[in-house]
Amino acid sequence: MKNCIVGQSGGPTAVINSSLCGVATAALKSDKIDKVFGAENGIEGVLNERFIDMSTVLKTAEDAETLNHTPSSYLGSCRFKLPAITDDAFYKNVFDIFTRNNIGYFFYIGGNDSMDTVDKLSAYAKKIGYDINIIGVPKTVDNDLTETDHTPGFGSAAKYIATTVREIGIDSDVYNLNSVTIVEIMGRNAGWLTAASILARNELFKAPHLIYLPEVTFENEKFLNDIKALNASGVNNIIVAVSEGIKYADGTYVCEAASSGLTDVFGHKNLSGTAKVLENVVREKLGFKARGVEINVSQRCAAHYTSETDVTEAFDVGQAAVKEAENGGTGMMMAFERVSDNPYKIEIKAKEISKIANGERVVPAEWIINGNDLSGEMITYLRPLIMGEPKIRTENGIPVYLKR
Amino acid sequence: MKNCIVGQSGGPTAVINSSLCGVATAALKSDKIDKVFGAENGIEGVLNERFIDMSTVLKTAEDAETLNHTPSSYLGSCRFKLPAITDDAFYKNVFDIFTRNNIGYFFYIGGNDSMDTVDKLSAYAKKIGYDINIIGVPKTVDNDLTETDHTPGFGSAAKYIATTVREIGIDSDVYNLNSVTIVEIMGRNAGWLTAASILARNELFKAPHLIYLPEVTFENEKFLNDIKALNASGVNNIIVAVSEGIKYADGTYVCEAASSGLTDVFGHKNLSGTAKVLENVVREKLGFKARGVEINVSQRCAAHYTSETDVTEAFDVGQAAVKEAENGGTGMMMAFERVSDNPYKIEIKAKEISKIANGERVVPAEWIINGNDLSGEMITYLRPLIMGEPKIRTENGIPVYLKR
Repeated sequence: MKNCIVGQSGGPTAVINSSLCGVATAALKSDKIDKVFGAENGIEGVLNERFIDMSTVLKTAEDAETLNHTPSSYLGSCRFKLPAITDDAFYKNVFDIFTRNNIGYFFYIGGNDSMDTVDKLSAYAKKIGYDINIIGVPKTVDNDLTETDHTPGFGSAAKYIATTVREIGIDSDVYNLNSVTIVEIMGRNAGWLTAASILARNELFKAPHLIYLPEVTFENEKFLNDIKALNASGVNNIIVAVSEGIKYADGTYVCEAASSGLTDVFGHKNLSGTAKVLENVVREKLGFKARGVEINVSQRCAAHYTSETDVTEAFDVGQAAVKEAENGGTGMMMAFERVSDNPYKIEIKAKEISKIANGERVVPAEWIINGNDLSGEMITYLRPLIMGEPKIRTENGIPVYLKR
Repeated sequence: MKNCIVGQSGGPTAVINSSLCGVATAALKSDKIDKVFGAENGIEGVLNERFIDMSTVLKTAEDAETLNHTPSSYLGSCRFKLPAITDDAFYKNVFDIFTRNNIGYFFYIGGNDSMDTVDKLSAYAKKIGYDINIIGVPKTVDNDLTETDHTPGFGSAAKYIATTVREIGIDSDVYNLNSVTIVEIMGRNAGWLTAASILARNELFKAPHLIYLPEVTFENEKFLNDIKALNASGVNNIIVAVSEGIKYADGTYVCEAASSGLTDVFGHKNLSGTAKVLENVVREKLGFKARGVEINVSQRCAAHYTSETDVTEAFDVGQAAVKEAENGGTGMMMAFERVSDNPYKIEIKAKEISKIANGERVVPAEWIINGNDLSGEMITYLRPLIMGEPKIRTENGIPVYLKR
């Protein structure tokens, strides 16, 4: 019997530990897998052989339940880009570590960049004929992985965003004056999270009145005209949802003037301040009361308020990954296929990792209306993902979470 | 039988409508009160005679239940400072409106500035011998009203802040590097909300590691030394809770460089950006990864996650206000007196409004430790206020709220 490694990588979500819980509990029960090692800080923990015996973490059903509802990466995370698989020195070291620890299974929970790790490790294993089953488990609030209907973590973030935008809309609507509130939501290139704000609307509540995604070139002129038109139609308190990643026609980010210009190790620009920039544009050009509100890291880690559908699916996809590995699968990512919208039904399938790694799925152009709104198809797509509220265990009035 | 007016004023809270619900349901049942009018946008709605018949709002028990859990001011709010009671023209107009609408009871739900309205109206009524019972119902996330143990709205904000700071702490702790996360919390002069972040701590989670209140003069030097000392003691990911209102020794706000310098009608400075200023200080002086996170308006309107204790007390204090008025009280504010901490027990008493209006209760100096932490007394005081999670009714995955 071989041992397995499970690791977490990339940015936190509210349910990345639900997937860890799914993988670990299935692997601990598996009669094909011996020890279950959690790698601290993803692939960095593999390189440093910092492993946690998951049987010591999940001693009771209550431990598993608590882990299942703990936000962020219990095992820690990393942003470590693997070199090309021509770098034999690097990969020889990794596979020596696998050999030394008798590793036959490797599960990696993460987003696009993490799937690149899964892709490279499986390609190298194949190249040297090392017998290992390497499976990616999807995770990202951004919902931008290809080959899957959606990603675990997105549904909870979407629910938090929709609820918070409804509450901000109500909060902004108490005074009797013209105001514009610009709510900034995560999403560098894909507008899924910002799009989710549309779920704040119902018959009573019309916020967000305008939605701008990074998929559409942003123009100050159009933005101001959109606001003026709304105001002229009688909307006094206007709520605008914008993605942090909206860009002007020349390719510069709206926030660029206010940002530090720093990039992370993957070359992604460090964005923030889009709402503040637009707040000033509105105040200066229209003279309305304007306020920029950044929905900050809470959108990805508010485990006190998750989608039950998301938590369940994140757990299930972890379990399915172990089953896929037991059945001999490797170089695959587990993915959701939607069978029907209503009643909502999905199936979990394994998809080839090489098609997914470093890919990016953006909002379809045909779902975007007039550059500032979304179609009913988007609502049909999104709604099932935010359904249900799990009961959260609290102690002294705040949620109980696990820590390594 | 006389009619009554109920109004809401000042900034939103998650439970100001629970108090409205408490007042309105008690007044609708009262055999001393005929019609129950909700004034739109507080005293502005009185001046414009924009009244809502509350019996049409609360037709069913479900309506009341939904209102009880709807954030912000259902009736709308205002920031309108009444002139001195020597301004007979102004007050004659107000009391003509009272006469015309047969008003014998006036309930005003709000904070310090709103209690100033209650104080002036009762003083003027006394001056002209107009028979009316005017009662203030406390409301403010800031918890800075005098003569009361605490204020409705604070407990829910405190619970949201403590939970969010715990989650931000977990979110910040995933990478293996030195980082400082500065969490900015509301509070212009009183540090109660920032202090509530201490409830995020337990045996496992130590965030927030440092807490800075506006009650203590802020010094960049001490702040940087506090961080260096923590880092030297082995804390890699440091979470700092700061009040938006912290000031340097010369009286300037920390955020002042970044703020607009605008003031509101009460002359309060418009603050924001404290966390961003300190983020830059840390990055420049210590070279650590630094991030400023502003817990924005959600701290006062996140009705999806309230303290059951707070919701219940907010309702009860509204009911008690009606009883006080029925018994002939006027020029009073309903207040909480704490009978015991454990088991937690409070009593609701009427206090003279003149002692409360425009007053401000700050955090006692003896509860502040070393300028960056709080004593056990603070925890004992705060904890009962955040207990319990009401069941929130959802529709399509997000909470159901009421709209006028």
